[in-house]
Amino acid sequence: MTAHRVDIRVIYADTDAMGIVYHANYIKWFEIGRTELMRARGIAHADIAPLGFALPVTRVYCHYLLPSRLDQVLAVLTTIDYVKRASLKFTYQIWDEALTERRVEGYTVHACTDTGGRVVRLPSPLVERLRTVC
Amino acid sequence: MTAHRVDIRVIYADTDAMGIVYHANYIKWFEIGRTELMRARGIAHADIAPLGFALPVTRVYCHYLLPSRLDQVLAVLTTIDYVKRASLKFTYQIWDEALTERRVEGYTVHACTDTGGRVVRLPSPLVERLRTVC
Amino acid sequence: MTAHRVDIRVIYADTDAMGIVYHANYIKWFEIGRTELMRARGIAHADIAPLGFALPVTRVYCHYLLPSRLDQVLAVLTTIDYVKRASLKFTYQIWDEALTERRVEGYTVHACTDTGGRVVRLPSPLVERLRTVC
Amino acid sequence: MTAHRVDIRVIYADTDAMGIVYHANYIKWFEIGRTELMRARGIAHADIAPLGFALPVTRVYCHYLLPSRLDQVLAVLTTIDYVKRASLKFTYQIWDEALTERRVEGYTVHACTDTGGRVVRLPSPLVERLRTVC
Repeated sequence: MTAHRVDIRVIYADTDAMGIVYHANYIKWFEIGRTELMRARGIAHADIAPLGFALPVTRVYCHYLLPSRLDQVLAVLTTIDYVKRASLKFTYQIWDEALTERRVEGYTVHACTDTGGRVVRLPSPLVERLRTVC
Repeated sequence: MTAHRVDIRVIYADTDAMGIVYHANYIKWFEIGRTELMRARGIAHADIAPLGFALPVTRVYCHYLLPSRLDQVLAVLTTIDYVKRASLKFTYQIWDEALTERRVEGYTVHACTDTGGRVVRLPSPLVERLRTVC
Repeated sequence: MTAHRVDIRVIYADTDAMGIVYHANYIKWFEIGRTELMRARGIAHADIAPLGFALPVTRVYCHYLLPSRLDQVLAVLTTIDYVKRASLKFTYQIWDEALTERRVEGYTVHACTDTGGRVVRLPSPLVERLRTVC
Repeated sequence: MTAHRVDIRVIYADTDAMGIVYHANYIKWFEIGRTELMRARGIAHADIAPLGFALPVTRVYCHYLLPSRLDQVLAVLTTIDYVKRASLKFTYQIWDEALTERRVEGYTVHACTDTGGRVVRLPSPLVERLRTVC
């Protein structure tokens, strides 16, 4: 199983007064990582909303190994850890562009909920697509 | 007419790699300024939403005079410039805590829209409260 | 040992199109929580920087139990979990204003580094103040 | 003279509880627009910093014509309005991906400053590259 890769360019808005990327901003890039992984498997937001469910984040973990700086290109590598009845988990690694050093690693866990916020089963077609490659 | 004041403490999340507050973040503080000015005049979000209208920003302008830094307390001073039939304008000044130097000044213009996004008249009770002091 | 409390008011900038607070924004509020806890113990940023060291985040974890919405006041409760030779850990709980329901809980781990980014011992005066109450 | 185009995909982090892109976030995309325009003309951040100067934003204006929503691709079109002795101005238009409707338009003005924050002349090689096409 290979990870899905999407690249990000660091701008001033992402950095802080320590001169490096502010830690919480990597967690926004996790969102880009999983969104593009799902799109690559045929699941865009426009495919989920009409089905009446959402995948809110229930847990996030992030380990910062090395800092990133202004104008660097970062590679966000995303994989699906598991797909259960009503939840799923993504893992992330963020590397420099040339993939020579790992900067950040982490995960997010998501519940499957209906529009009222109640936990429900993941729809079968979605599960199949998510499990295709992993 | 005096301006409404609300204080903000700068955190790392607000700063960038130049070592100062990132310019777009002042515009979030404009939101705090006008929200608290309106609350002081008896208009909270909870009073607006049930009436079925919103006040989206249609224009923003910001002039940066001096930089702000980590951990400084800033005073956001907000006034109402005008209240028209279907729009209103707020002006802002952001000073250091002791009000010795003006750091930023700007304005936002807002349309009054219904839940479908169409421009509508500002409800009379709202207009009265907004015009009370200015 | 009691937690240090600081209150936050949710603005539009904090929310997302699900109508709730965007998950990564709680992690910015963790920064406010630990900064104010440290200030209450006599350690402001201005006390740390001249000593030539920093406390970058090395790990963050966040568990989302219940959503928060626009204009709600949230109570960020921060405690110090441990203070070691060259690292420390804060734990956080975010509740509604009346402390009737816990919305979010999490932690951050920090390394103590010099200006060159190398891990160093936490200065003794700092350790003493951090350990005072916990 | 044609505008420089760079595309952005809207994620949850960019939206707010009105269900649309939060107004201040377009101003971050202005940063991406001008950074990529400058890179296309041979001026990356790594080319500016060693010369000992910076281009902080001194004014920003933004007019919101139509809202943008989750997962839409937006085209940020950037042009250079003018390059003076010690300042320059960029103008921006943000359209939908197919360029059928203009959503946002605005500008930023920048001063040229040295590392101490004093206004200085724009270095000649920079001026030449910036004026090449406009």
